Amino acid sequence: MKQINNKGCTTSEKLYLKGKLYNIAVGMRKINLTDTVTINSKGEKVSEKNSPVIVYDTGGVHTDENISVNINEGIPRLRESWITQRGDIIELRQLSSEYGRKRAEDSSTENIRFKKRYMPLKAEDGKEITQLYYARQGIITAEMEYVAIRENMINDELGIDSYITPEFVRDEIASGKAIIPANINHPESEPMIIGSAFSVKINTNIGNSALSSGINEEVEKAIWSCKWGGDTLMDLSTGKNIHETREWIIRNSPVPIGTVPIYQALEKVNGNVKDLTWEIYRDTLIEQCEQGVDYFTIHAGVTKNHIELTKNRLTGVVSRGGSIMMQWCAIHNSESFLYTHFDEICDIVKQYDVALSLGDGMRPGSIHDANDKAQFSELEILGELTQKAWSKNVQVIIEGPGHIPMHKIKENMDKQIEYCNGAPFYTLGPLTTDIAPGYDHITSAIGAAMIAWYGTAMICYVTPKEHLGLPNKEDVRNGIIAYKIAAHAADIAKGLPGATIRDNALSKARFEFRWRDQFNLALDPERALEYYKENNRTDGDFCTMCGPNFCAMRITKEIHKGNVSC
Amino acid sequence: MKQINNKGCTTSEKLYLKGKLYNIAVGMRKINLTDTVTINSKGEKVSEKNSPVIVYDTGGVHTDENISVNINEGIPRLRESWITQRGDIIELRQLSSEYGRKRAEDSSTENIRFKKRYMPLKAEDGKEITQLYYARQGIITAEMEYVAIRENMINDELGIDSYITPEFVRDEIASGKAIIPANINHPESEPMIIGSAFSVKINTNIGNSALSSGINEEVEKAIWSCKWGGDTLMDLSTGKNIHETREWIIRNSPVPIGTVPIYQALEKVNGNVKDLTWEIYRDTLIEQCEQGVDYFTIHAGVTKNHIELTKNRLTGVVSRGGSIMMQWCAIHNSESFLYTHFDEICDIVKQYDVALSLGDGMRPGSIHDANDKAQFSELEILGELTQKAWSKNVQVIIEGPGHIPMHKIKENMDKQIEYCNGAPFYTLGPLTTDIAPGYDHITSAIGAAMIAWYGTAMICYVTPKEHLGLPNKEDVRNGIIAYKIAAHAADIAKGLPGATIRDNALSKARFEFRWRDQFNLALDPERALEYYKENNRTDGDFCTMCGPNFCAMRITKEIHKGNVSC
Repeated sequence: MKQINNKGCTTSEKLYLKGKLYNIAVGMRKINLTDTVTINSKGEKVSEKNSPVIVYDTGGVHTDENISVNINEGIPRLRESWITQRGDIIELRQLSSEYGRKRAEDSSTENIRFKKRYMPLKAEDGKEITQLYYARQGIITAEMEYVAIRENMINDELGIDSYITPEFVRDEIASGKAIIPANINHPESEPMIIGSAFSVKINTNIGNSALSSGINEEVEKAIWSCKWGGDTLMDLSTGKNIHETREWIIRNSPVPIGTVPIYQALEKVNGNVKDLTWEIYRDTLIEQCEQGVDYFTIHAGVTKNHIELTKNRLTGVVSRGGSIMMQWCAIHNSESFLYTHFDEICDIVKQYDVALSLGDGMRPGSIHDANDKAQFSELEILGELTQKAWSKNVQVIIEGPGHIPMHKIKENMDKQIEYCNGAPFYTLGPLTTDIAPGYDHITSAIGAAMIAWYGTAMICYVTPKEHLGLPNKEDVRNGIIAYKIAAHAADIAKGLPGATIRDNALSKARFEFRWRDQFNLALDPERALEYYKENNRTDGDFCTMCGPNFCAMRITKEIHKGNVSC
Repeated sequence: MKQINNKGCTTSEKLYLKGKLYNIAVGMRKINLTDTVTINSKGEKVSEKNSPVIVYDTGGVHTDENISVNINEGIPRLRESWITQRGDIIELRQLSSEYGRKRAEDSSTENIRFKKRYMPLKAEDGKEITQLYYARQGIITAEMEYVAIRENMINDELGIDSYITPEFVRDEIASGKAIIPANINHPESEPMIIGSAFSVKINTNIGNSALSSGINEEVEKAIWSCKWGGDTLMDLSTGKNIHETREWIIRNSPVPIGTVPIYQALEKVNGNVKDLTWEIYRDTLIEQCEQGVDYFTIHAGVTKNHIELTKNRLTGVVSRGGSIMMQWCAIHNSESFLYTHFDEICDIVKQYDVALSLGDGMRPGSIHDANDKAQFSELEILGELTQKAWSKNVQVIIEGPGHIPMHKIKENMDKQIEYCNGAPFYTLGPLTTDIAPGYDHITSAIGAAMIAWYGTAMICYVTPKEHLGLPNKEDVRNGIIAYKIAAHAADIAKGLPGATIRDNALSKARFEFRWRDQFNLALDPERALEYYKENNRTDGDFCTMCGPNFCAMRITKEIHKGNVSC
């Protein structure tokens, strides 16, 4: 299958880097470049090689042209042997979740079910199996070595030393500053790490609402997201057949999958918040753990008190999960069952190594509501819950806002580090102004780049359709590229070793009028080529922007060559 | 003529605010909003008014539906009487520039010439006529009162005190910290101010290259730019008929026009840099001063020394003007005539009140070259030239980069303030990464928002076609909106009084499902509406993003109303 990131690019290829500790092969992408050709003083052509550039590739087998994928079969189960060889898990004879069993036995779902069935894996009684547990024991897992190799986007010949060793990865995980979301029931996923010491990751959201889209479309969008560079994928479906849609997505996804289990729990009670119970929610968690969801957004920091705190807001509560839980608290005049049952939640998810993404139910929905008491008081509670999760070896990330003006962004990062002891921060944008519906991928890329520079580990993309409707494939592409830009700009600003290799290679190609190389090195080669062709270009030493007499780069080269009268 | 900024919006209207010192009418746009309708406890509908929002409008008469514009006639000459009433200028009997006279007499240009001829105005011998001069004398001009009113986008009823008084404007100009680019030969322009104490402005570039586009297209693009929100417009044409194209643009432009005179000077010597002379350049300056260009980009800070300093760069010199001057220095082994004749340049432009935009010929063209010695040594020279210009009462702004990673942006602002004593900074982006050709409006909007927050007064837009080709109208629109976002995000972060009024009004409309109001308040109402309609929307209390059961804002309102079991 053609690698979309390099459509129109015939020079890039999948590259597998071997592990030293484990028998692993880490999928990267190698962008081969043409030679630099100059004319020497004797008038002879002189060619000089340009090193290929190796880049992170989130596409998995979907971007390996030597592997053909049949989505009815699912993609290869890369981590299966790593997981079973650790000898601390059991294979269940039946699904633990009542709902899961019901759907499996329901003949009406047969035609939409993913055909291949795998029985779930689970920790053996008394065994701890999370990456956090292993890290704390000093164990470097295959997953840790995998991400260490994956993060080192450094060409050997440049001789840049990177601190990103397997041991460093282990240490960051042990301290809670990074996580590898890797449910043992999603062995198809390629390990990736979320933590401020590593490259900034981007999450994309897909999902049908009650009003739209079907399974095929969602699977297609999931693959599309991985190909363009989404590091994780949240399935936020709220419509019919959530269970079956999710199965299809997980079996075909090389990236970790996140969900918001309260959405499905609410569907199970036909949208009546009143009828939500801990038991239904609990069964939903188990159902999804056994399907292979890698991380759950849980709005356990929204408590009864928040009802009062949001009354003076301009835009109230804009988190779906947050508003549902607040409503539940109001109806029952009780504390949130997510908060009161948090220990049990941890006890469930740790048996599958599902990570928790502590949701920010109080995230501001407008510049006006940014950094208010509702928001920060929830963050304090998330800090408390982080400690609980860590005490049970559960991996944790913290979700953040939302709509924040630029001058208030840093405060969010600082408070998050303080309250949550350095657990990775995962933010939606933030959007830096409210006045640009239709362009919120841009209003939010500004905030996302800044907060990622300050230390946010993963940024959740926003598409041009935000606030207006569900994104189509083109919107997903635009949202992803905007966020790849923000993430990469932050990697450079953070000073990650090797972060500028691709920039430098592209700029060198630009200066030397190696147009094809310039496009192949771009985040979206296809679009760059399309725009270039629009202007009826020559492949010469100038572009239509400035015309032949005004090409600054051409003139510079002539001057430096000593051809002063060019 | 329909106001494009509000296409699909029938509720906005042009509003003219009166001056107190002068008989002036400042064109603004008033966006009228619908009422907030709620149901009270008795089940009755209760309506509450929402104040209209008054916004800055760069469109001039082009966005006044009561005025029909004939571009063959040009737009009304708003400032003509203000200028003549000051009694310090004379009307010339003929053009001072040799080239200007030649073109006027050349019958071959007759069919492309703007028909209406105005004889140029010029300072009376011994009189000082720049806004900087007036400000230093304690004189508040009509232009100063105009911008004071224009900058106050505050609804009276909010009772926010603004510091932006005519006297404050005068004071900022007197200190050199702000300029009003306002050539006495461009009376069609509506005064606007560029300075860090005011709202951030955006510049757009248009212009044909030797390879493309004609006069009609350029005039159309100029008007298009004003309508979407461009505050100033640079005509960077390098092709044929530059002189005539410029005349058409100026006579129809309500915003100040900037140029880079070296481009035309080079055309006059058929692109042979060797043949450039001070005399040709001087005649070009005068030609353009008398047409009404409001500010000139002059790369007078590029000196002979810079040839050596750029040798180790990855992308050499990427400023067209910079590379031309460097080449001239190399060919002639002489110091740049722009540097050596800088005093004379000031003496010419001050007679027309043309402002100088000191060009950054050494701006980096890649992340790799950011903040290097070539760049900052030029900036030091620009500081020296600023002092010279100020000593002659010439208004000055300083151009800045370019490609700068996020962590190096602030250093640019700090050094600019230090070297140039607070003269307004005017930057191109900066682009925060090199790897996204096709999306450089986004890579650069990130940098632009940040540097504007730090104090940059005007940001020059970048379109998606940057590095690839010349922008078409849709690219111009996308570039402008990206930059309006960056500028507005910076206005909020800077804490400008009233900067969040539009955000708050839009967010309130969003929370109350007043969709039309939300769109009308958006930077691009047309696009927001188009996206909204794509999803087959209801006009109900939810959107397709979340579906009816999951609308957080709807749920919040119900909870706050006490309808807990909704």
